[in-house]
Amino acid sequence: MNGLEYLDRIAAALGKLPGIGRRSAERMAFRLAWEPDGVMRELGGALRDAQENVRLCPLCGSITTVAELPCKLCTNASRDSSVVCVVQDPSDIVALERTGAYKGRYHALMGIISPMHGEGPGDLRLQALIQRVEKEGFQEVIMALGTDVESEATANYIAELLKGRNVRISRLASGIPVGSGVGYSDAITLSRAIKGRQNL
Amino acid sequence: MNGLEYLDRIAAALGKLPGIGRRSAERMAFRLAWEPDGVMRELGGALRDAQENVRLCPLCGSITTVAELPCKLCTNASRDSSVVCVVQDPSDIVALERTGAYKGRYHALMGIISPMHGEGPGDLRLQALIQRVEKEGFQEVIMALGTDVESEATANYIAELLKGRNVRISRLASGIPVGSGVGYSDAITLSRAIKGRQNL
Repeated sequence: MNGLEYLDRIAAALGKLPGIGRRSAERMAFRLAWEPDGVMRELGGALRDAQENVRLCPLCGSITTVAELPCKLCTNASRDSSVVCVVQDPSDIVALERTGAYKGRYHALMGIISPMHGEGPGDLRLQALIQRVEKEGFQEVIMALGTDVESEATANYIAELLKGRNVRISRLASGIPVGSGVGYSDAITLSRAIKGRQNL
Repeated sequence: MNGLEYLDRIAAALGKLPGIGRRSAERMAFRLAWEPDGVMRELGGALRDAQENVRLCPLCGSITTVAELPCKLCTNASRDSSVVCVVQDPSDIVALERTGAYKGRYHALMGIISPMHGEGPGDLRLQALIQRVEKEGFQEVIMALGTDVESEATANYIAELLKGRNVRISRLASGIPVGSGVGYSDAITLSRAIKGRQNL
Protein backbone atom coordinates (compact mmCIF):
# COMPACT_ATOMS: atom_id res chain seq x y z
CA MET A 1 0.00 0.00 0.00
CA ASN A 2 1.23 3.53 -0.69
CA GLY A 3 0.76 6.39 1.76
CA LEU A 4 -2.47 7.61 0.18
CA GLU A 5 -4.07 4.19 0.38
CA TYR A 6 -3.52 4.18 4.14
CA LEU A 7 -5.23 7.56 4.31
CA ASP A 8 -8.05 6.32 2.10
CA ARG A 9 -8.78 3.59 4.64
CA ILE A 10 -9.02 6.19 7.41
CA ALA A 11 -11.21 8.40 5.21
CA ALA A 12 -13.49 5.48 4.35
CA ALA A 13 -14.08 4.75 8.05
CA LEU A 14 -14.57 8.43 8.93
CA GLY A 15 -16.99 8.78 6.01
CA LYS A 16 -19.35 6.32 7.70
CA LEU A 17 -19.86 8.70 10.61
CA PRO A 18 -22.86 11.06 10.62
CA GLY A 19 -22.47 14.37 8.82
CA ILE A 20 -19.10 13.48 7.28
CA GLY A 21 -19.02 13.62 3.51
CA ARG A 22 -16.34 11.99 1.40
CA ARG A 23 -14.47 15.26 0.91
CA SER A 24 -14.36 16.19 4.61
CA ALA A 25 -13.30 12.64 5.48
CA GLU A 26 -10.37 13.01 3.09
CA ARG A 27 -9.39 16.35 4.58
CA MET A 28 -9.57 14.87 8.07
CA ALA A 29 -7.43 11.88 7.06
CA PHE A 30 -4.80 14.23 5.62
CA ARG A 31 -4.84 16.31 8.77
CA LEU A 32 -4.30 13.15 10.83
CA ALA A 33 -1.36 12.17 8.65
CA TRP A 34 0.46 15.42 9.28
CA GLU A 35 0.81 14.70 12.94
CA PRO A 36 1.60 11.01 13.22
CA ASP A 37 2.50 11.50 16.88
CA GLY A 38 -0.22 14.01 17.71
CA VAL A 39 -3.90 13.75 16.90
CA MET A 40 -3.60 10.36 15.19
CA ARG A 41 -2.03 8.79 18.26
CA GLU A 42 -4.55 10.50 20.54
CA LEU A 43 -7.54 9.37 18.48
CA GLY A 44 -6.12 5.87 18.04
CA GLY A 45 -5.59 5.51 21.79
CA ALA A 46 -9.02 6.87 22.65
CA LEU A 47 -10.64 4.45 20.18
CA ARG A 48 -8.68 1.50 21.52
CA ASP A 49 -9.62 2.27 25.14
CA ALA A 50 -13.26 2.83 24.22
CA GLN A 51 -13.37 -0.40 22.22
CA GLU A 52 -12.10 -2.31 25.24
CA ASN A 53 -14.26 -0.63 27.84
CA VAL A 54 -17.39 0.96 26.40
CA ARG A 55 -20.53 -1.13 26.02
CA LEU A 56 -24.21 -0.47 25.48
CA CYS A 57 -26.36 -1.47 28.46
CA PRO A 58 -28.18 -4.69 27.49
CA LEU A 59 -31.34 -3.43 29.21
CA CYS A 60 -31.77 0.25 28.34
CA GLY A 61 -29.17 0.71 25.60
CA SER A 62 -27.34 3.59 27.26
CA ILE A 63 -23.57 4.06 27.12
CA THR A 64 -21.85 2.19 29.93
CA THR A 65 -18.67 0.22 30.60
CA VAL A 66 -17.85 -3.49 30.85
CA ALA A 67 -17.67 -2.94 34.63
CA GLU A 68 -21.31 -1.81 34.77
CA LEU A 69 -23.62 -4.17 32.93
CA PRO A 70 -26.50 -3.40 33.31
CA CYS A 71 -25.82 0.31 33.71
CA LYS A 72 -26.31 2.48 36.80
CA LEU A 73 -29.50 3.99 35.37
CA CYS A 74 -31.02 0.49 35.33
CA THR A 75 -29.66 -0.74 38.67
CA ASN A 76 -29.98 2.43 40.79
CA ALA A 77 -32.74 1.49 43.29
CA SER A 78 -33.49 5.13 44.06
CA ARG A 79 -34.80 5.72 40.52
CA ASP A 80 -38.50 5.29 39.75
CA SER A 81 -39.05 1.78 38.38
CA SER A 82 -42.67 2.41 37.46
CA VAL A 83 -41.92 4.56 34.41
CA VAL A 84 -39.77 4.05 31.31
CA CYS A 85 -38.74 6.72 28.83
CA VAL A 86 -38.38 5.55 25.21
CA VAL A 87 -35.71 7.41 23.22
CA GLN A 88 -34.18 7.10 19.77
CA ASP A 89 -30.55 6.61 20.79
CA PRO A 90 -28.10 6.70 23.72
CA SER A 91 -27.23 10.38 23.25
CA ASP A 92 -30.89 11.26 24.00
CA ILE A 93 -30.49 9.62 27.42
CA VAL A 94 -27.54 11.90 28.11
CA ALA A 95 -29.59 14.96 27.09
CA LEU A 96 -32.51 13.95 29.33
CA GLU A 97 -30.24 13.14 32.29
CA ARG A 98 -28.70 16.58 31.96
CA THR A 99 -32.09 18.14 32.75
CA GLY A 100 -32.33 16.36 36.10
CA ALA A 101 -36.10 16.43 35.54
CA TYR A 102 -36.54 12.69 35.01
CA LYS A 103 -35.72 9.93 37.49
CA GLY A 104 -37.22 6.82 35.90
CA ARG A 105 -35.83 4.11 33.61
CA TYR A 106 -34.86 4.40 29.94
CA HIS A 107 -35.15 2.37 26.77
CA ALA A 108 -33.19 3.34 23.65
CA LEU A 109 -34.65 2.03 20.37
CA MET A 110 -31.33 2.49 18.50
CA GLY A 111 -33.09 4.21 15.62
CA ILE A 112 -36.56 5.06 14.35
CA ILE A 113 -38.75 3.51 11.72
CA SER A 114 -37.55 5.13 8.51
CA PRO A 115 -38.54 3.43 5.25
CA MET A 116 -36.52 6.05 3.38
CA HIS A 117 -33.35 4.79 5.06
CA GLY A 118 -34.36 1.14 4.96
CA GLU A 119 -35.04 0.98 8.70
CA GLY A 120 -38.06 -1.10 9.65
CA PRO A 121 -39.54 -2.07 13.03
CA GLY A 122 -37.30 -5.16 13.02
CA ASP A 123 -34.20 -2.96 13.21
CA LEU A 124 -35.30 -1.37 16.49
CA ARG A 125 -35.21 -2.74 20.03
CA LEU A 126 -38.99 -3.14 20.09
CA GLN A 127 -39.26 -6.76 21.25
CA ALA A 128 -36.94 -5.90 24.11
CA LEU A 129 -39.23 -2.99 25.04
CA ILE A 130 -42.33 -5.18 25.10
CA GLN A 131 -40.54 -7.79 27.20
CA ARG A 132 -39.41 -5.12 29.65
CA VAL A 133 -42.91 -3.65 29.91
CA GLU A 134 -44.23 -7.11 30.75
CA LYS A 135 -41.43 -8.16 33.08
CA GLU A 136 -40.59 -4.92 34.86
CA GLY A 137 -44.26 -3.89 35.20
CA PHE A 138 -43.93 -0.26 34.10
CA GLN A 139 -47.07 1.78 34.72
CA GLU A 140 -46.14 4.48 32.21
CA VAL A 141 -44.21 4.57 28.94
CA ILE A 142 -43.09 8.09 27.96
CA MET A 143 -42.31 8.55 24.27
CA ALA A 144 -39.39 10.96 24.11
CA LEU A 145 -38.92 10.82 20.34
CA GLY A 146 -38.53 13.70 17.90
CA THR A 147 -41.40 15.71 16.38
CA ASP A 148 -40.53 14.90 12.76
CA VAL A 149 -42.88 12.69 10.75
CA GLU A 150 -40.83 9.50 11.09
CA SER A 151 -40.37 9.85 14.85
CA GLU A 152 -44.08 10.48 15.36
CA ALA A 153 -44.98 7.50 13.20
CA THR A 154 -42.59 5.40 15.30
CA ALA A 155 -44.23 6.64 18.52
CA ASN A 156 -47.68 5.78 17.16
CA TYR A 157 -46.48 2.34 16.05
CA ILE A 158 -45.17 1.62 19.56
CA ALA A 159 -48.38 2.93 21.14
CA GLU A 160 -50.30 0.42 18.97
CA LEU A 161 -47.96 -2.39 20.04
CA LEU A 162 -48.47 -1.63 23.72
CA LYS A 163 -52.24 -1.25 23.50
CA GLY A 164 -54.17 -3.46 25.91
CA ARG A 165 -51.18 -3.94 28.16
CA ASN A 166 -52.61 -1.77 30.94
CA VAL A 167 -49.88 0.83 30.74
CA ARG A 168 -50.25 4.60 30.35
CA ILE A 169 -48.58 5.85 27.18
CA SER A 170 -47.56 9.51 27.05
CA ARG A 171 -45.30 11.68 25.01
CA LEU A 172 -43.20 14.79 25.65
CA ALA A 173 -45.05 18.10 25.32
CA SER A 174 -44.63 19.85 22.01
CA GLY A 175 -44.90 23.66 21.75
CA ILE A 176 -43.03 26.94 21.72
CA PRO A 177 -39.40 26.47 22.84
CA VAL A 178 -38.43 28.42 25.97
CA GLY A 179 -36.97 31.80 25.03
CA SER A 180 -38.79 31.97 21.68
CA GLY A 181 -41.86 33.96 20.70
CA VAL A 182 -45.24 33.26 19.10
CA GLY A 183 -44.24 35.16 15.96
CA TYR A 184 -41.19 32.96 15.45
CA SER A 185 -43.04 29.66 15.67
CA ASP A 186 -44.36 27.79 12.66
CA ALA A 187 -48.05 27.01 12.28
CA ILE A 188 -47.80 23.34 13.25
CA THR A 189 -45.84 24.12 16.42
CA LEU A 190 -48.35 26.81 17.33
CA SER A 191 -51.37 24.58 16.78
CA ARG A 192 -49.67 21.94 18.98
CA ALA A 193 -49.06 24.60 21.61
CA ILE A 194 -52.74 25.61 21.52
CA LYS A 195 -53.96 22.02 21.74
CA GLY A 196 -51.64 21.26 24.64
CA ARG A 197 -52.27 24.50 26.54
CA GLN A 198 -51.92 24.36 30.30
CA ASN A 199 -53.93 26.05 33.06
CA LEU A 200 -52.18 28.99 34.69
CA MET B 1 -13.86 6.39 33.82
CA ASN B 2 -17.53 5.99 32.95
CA GLY B 3 -18.72 5.27 29.42
CA LEU B 4 -19.28 8.91 28.53
CA GLU B 5 -15.77 9.88 29.56
CA TYR B 6 -14.36 7.38 27.08
CA LEU B 7 -16.52 8.96 24.38
CA ASP B 8 -15.43 12.43 25.46
CA ARG B 9 -11.82 11.46 24.81
CA ILE B 10 -12.73 10.33 21.28
CA ALA B 11 -14.73 13.52 20.72
CA ALA B 12 -11.86 15.68 21.98
CA ALA B 13 -9.48 14.10 19.45
CA LEU B 14 -12.00 14.31 16.60
CA GLY B 15 -12.69 17.96 17.51
CA LYS B 16 -9.10 18.82 16.62
CA LEU B 17 -9.68 17.85 12.99
CA PRO B 18 -10.58 20.52 10.42
CA GLY B 19 -14.25 21.40 10.11
CA ILE B 20 -15.34 19.36 13.10
CA GLY B 21 -17.09 21.35 15.80
CA ARG B 22 -17.55 20.13 19.36
CA ARG B 23 -21.14 19.08 18.72
CA SER B 24 -20.38 17.03 15.58
CA ALA B 25 -17.42 15.42 17.34
CA GLU B 26 -19.77 14.30 20.12
CA ARG B 27 -22.27 12.92 17.62
CA MET B 28 -19.49 11.05 15.83
CA ALA B 29 -18.19 9.61 19.10
CA PHE B 30 -21.68 8.37 19.97
CA ARG B 31 -22.06 6.85 16.55
CA LEU B 32 -18.75 5.04 16.99
CA ALA B 33 -19.89 3.69 20.36
CA TRP B 34 -22.97 2.07 18.90
CA GLU B 35 -20.94 -0.27 16.79
CA PRO B 36 -18.02 -1.37 18.91
CA ASP B 37 -17.16 -4.06 16.37
CA GLY B 38 -17.95 -2.05 13.27
CA VAL B 39 -16.79 1.45 12.45
CA MET B 40 -14.80 1.89 15.67
CA ARG B 41 -12.75 -1.22 14.96
CA GLU B 42 -12.32 -0.22 11.32
CA LEU B 43 -11.19 3.31 12.16
CA GLY B 44 -8.97 2.10 14.98
CA GLY B 45 -7.26 -0.42 12.70
CA ALA B 46 -6.84 2.09 9.89
CA LEU B 47 -5.28 4.62 12.29
CA ARG B 48 -2.95 2.02 13.78
CA ASP B 49 -1.73 0.90 10.34
CA ALA B 50 -1.31 4.49 9.15
CA GLN B 51 0.58 5.44 12.30
CA GLU B 52 2.99 2.58 11.72
CA ASN B 53 3.46 3.09 8.00
CA VAL B 54 2.62 6.61 6.84
CA ARG B 55 5.29 9.28 6.97
CA LEU B 56 5.81 12.70 5.42
CA CYS B 57 8.64 12.79 2.90
CA PRO B 58 11.56 14.60 4.59
CA LEU B 59 12.35 16.38 1.31
CA CYS B 60 9.06 17.49 -0.26
CA GLY B 61 6.61 16.84 2.59
CA SER B 62 4.27 14.63 0.59
CA ILE B 63 2.48 11.61 2.03
CA THR B 64 4.62 8.48 1.74
CA THR B 65 5.46 5.32 3.69
CA VAL B 66 8.37 4.23 5.88
CA ALA B 67 9.46 2.07 2.95
CA GLU B 68 9.85 5.10 0.68
CA LEU B 69 11.84 7.87 2.33
CA PRO B 70 12.40 10.12 0.39
CA CYS B 71 9.21 9.59 -1.61
CA LYS B 72 8.88 8.47 -5.23
CA LEU B 73 8.14 12.03 -6.39
CA CYS B 74 11.58 13.06 -5.11
CA THR B 75 13.54 10.01 -6.26
CA ASN B 76 11.93 9.35 -9.65
CA ALA B 77 14.72 10.22 -12.09
CA SER B 78 12.29 10.69 -14.99
CA ARG B 79 10.75 13.74 -13.31
CA ASP B 80 12.07 17.22 -14.08
CA SER B 81 14.65 18.17 -11.42
CA SER B 82 14.98 21.73 -12.65
CA VAL B 83 11.64 22.94 -11.31
CA VAL B 84 9.99 22.81 -7.88
CA CYS B 85 6.34 23.51 -7.10
CA VAL B 86 5.65 25.10 -3.70
CA VAL B 87 2.31 24.11 -2.16
CA GLN B 88 0.57 24.68 1.14
CA ASP B 89 0.12 21.08 2.24
CA PRO B 90 0.44 17.44 1.12
CA SER B 91 -3.14 17.24 -0.20
CA ASP B 92 -2.27 19.93 -2.75
CA ILE B 93 0.41 17.62 -4.15
CA VAL B 94 -2.25 14.95 -4.65
CA ALA B 95 -4.50 17.45 -6.45
CA LEU B 96 -1.68 18.57 -8.76
CA GLU B 97 -0.54 15.00 -9.47
CA ARG B 98 -4.11 14.16 -10.46
CA THR B 99 -3.85 16.65 -13.34
CA GLY B 100 -0.88 14.88 -14.89
CA ALA B 101 0.17 18.35 -16.12
CA TYR B 102 3.22 18.73 -13.88
CA LYS B 103 6.28 16.50 -13.81
CA GLY B 104 8.73 18.39 -11.58
CA ARG B 105 9.52 18.26 -7.87
CA TYR B 106 7.38 19.50 -4.98
CA HIS B 107 7.83 21.32 -1.71
CA ALA B 108 4.99 21.47 0.84
CA LEU B 109 5.22 24.37 3.30
CA MET B 110 2.87 22.67 5.81
CA GLY B 111 0.85 25.83 6.19
CA ILE B 112 0.81 29.47 5.15
CA ILE B 113 1.76 32.65 6.99
CA SER B 114 -1.37 33.53 8.92
CA PRO B 115 -0.97 36.01 11.78
CA MET B 116 -4.69 35.52 12.54
CA HIS B 117 -4.03 31.87 13.37
CA GLY B 118 -0.67 32.52 15.01
CA GLU B 119 1.29 31.03 12.11
CA GLY B 120 4.49 32.87 11.27
CA PRO B 121 7.25 32.17 8.74
CA GLY B 122 9.04 30.08 11.40
CA ASP B 123 6.18 27.55 11.38
CA LEU B 124 6.64 26.80 7.68
CA ARG B 125 9.26 24.69 5.91
CA LEU B 126 10.96 27.78 4.49
CA GLN B 127 14.57 27.10 5.52
CA ALA B 128 14.25 23.67 3.96
CA LEU B 129 13.02 25.29 0.73
CA ILE B 130 15.97 27.67 0.56
CA GLN B 131 18.40 24.83 1.25
CA ARG B 132 16.82 22.74 -1.49
CA VAL B 133 16.92 25.63 -3.98
CA GLU B 134 20.65 26.00 -3.27
CA LYS B 135 21.51 22.31 -3.16
CA GLU B 136 19.27 20.89 -5.89
CA GLY B 137 19.83 23.84 -8.22
CA PHE B 138 16.23 24.44 -9.31
CA GLN B 139 15.89 26.87 -12.19
CA GLU B 140 12.26 27.67 -11.46
CA VAL B 141 10.11 27.85 -8.34
CA ILE B 142 6.37 27.72 -9.07
CA MET B 143 4.16 29.12 -6.33
CA ALA B 144 1.03 26.94 -6.29
CA LEU B 145 -0.63 28.59 -3.32
CA GLY B 146 -4.21 29.82 -2.96
CA THR B 147 -5.49 33.18 -4.18
CA ASP B 148 -6.67 34.39 -0.77
CA VAL B 149 -4.85 37.30 0.90
CA GLU B 150 -2.78 35.17 3.27
CA SER B 151 -1.64 32.75 0.55
CA GLU B 152 -0.62 35.61 -1.74
CA ALA B 153 1.25 37.32 1.09
CA THR B 154 3.05 34.03 1.73
CA ALA B 155 3.98 33.72 -1.97
CA ASN B 156 5.34 37.29 -1.98
CA TYR B 157 7.29 36.63 1.21
CA ILE B 158 8.93 33.58 -0.36
CA ALA B 159 9.66 35.48 -3.58
CA GLU B 160 11.51 38.08 -1.46
CA LEU B 161 13.47 35.34 0.30
CA LEU B 162 14.58 33.80 -2.98
CA LYS B 163 15.50 37.10 -4.65
CA GLY B 164 19.04 37.25 -6.01
CA ARG B 165 19.33 33.48 -6.09
CA ASN B 166 19.21 33.31 -9.88
CA VAL B 167 15.98 31.32 -9.99
CA ARG B 168 12.83 32.11 -11.92
CA ILE B 169 9.83 32.53 -9.60
CA SER B 170 6.38 32.05 -11.09
CA ARG B 171 2.89 31.43 -9.83
CA LEU B 172 -0.16 29.56 -11.13
CA ALA B 173 -2.38 31.53 -13.48
CA SER B 174 -5.41 33.11 -11.89
CA GLY B 175 -8.58 33.76 -13.91
CA ILE B 176 -11.98 32.45 -14.89
CA PRO B 177 -12.41 28.79 -13.89
CA VAL B 178 -13.04 26.41 -16.78
CA GLY B 179 -16.76 25.96 -17.34
CA SER B 180 -17.68 29.31 -15.82
CA GLY B 181 -18.65 32.59 -17.52
CA VAL B 182 -17.58 36.21 -17.41
CA GLY B 183 -20.85 37.23 -15.78
CA TYR B 184 -20.33 34.80 -12.92
CA SER B 185 -16.82 35.99 -12.04
CA ASP B 186 -16.08 38.62 -9.41
CA ALA B 187 -14.27 41.85 -10.29
CA ILE B 188 -10.88 40.83 -8.85
CA THR B 189 -10.87 37.52 -10.72
CA LEU B 190 -11.85 39.29 -13.94
CA SER B 191 -9.15 41.94 -13.60
CA ARG B 192 -6.63 39.13 -13.01
CA ALA B 193 -7.93 37.38 -16.11
CA ILE B 194 -7.52 40.55 -18.15
CA LYS B 195 -4.00 41.18 -16.86
CA GLY B 196 -2.96 37.60 -17.55
CA ARG B 197 -4.62 37.33 -20.96
CA GLN B 198 -3.04 34.92 -23.43
CA ASN B 199 -2.54 35.22 -27.20
CA LEU B 200 -4.91 33.10 -29.25
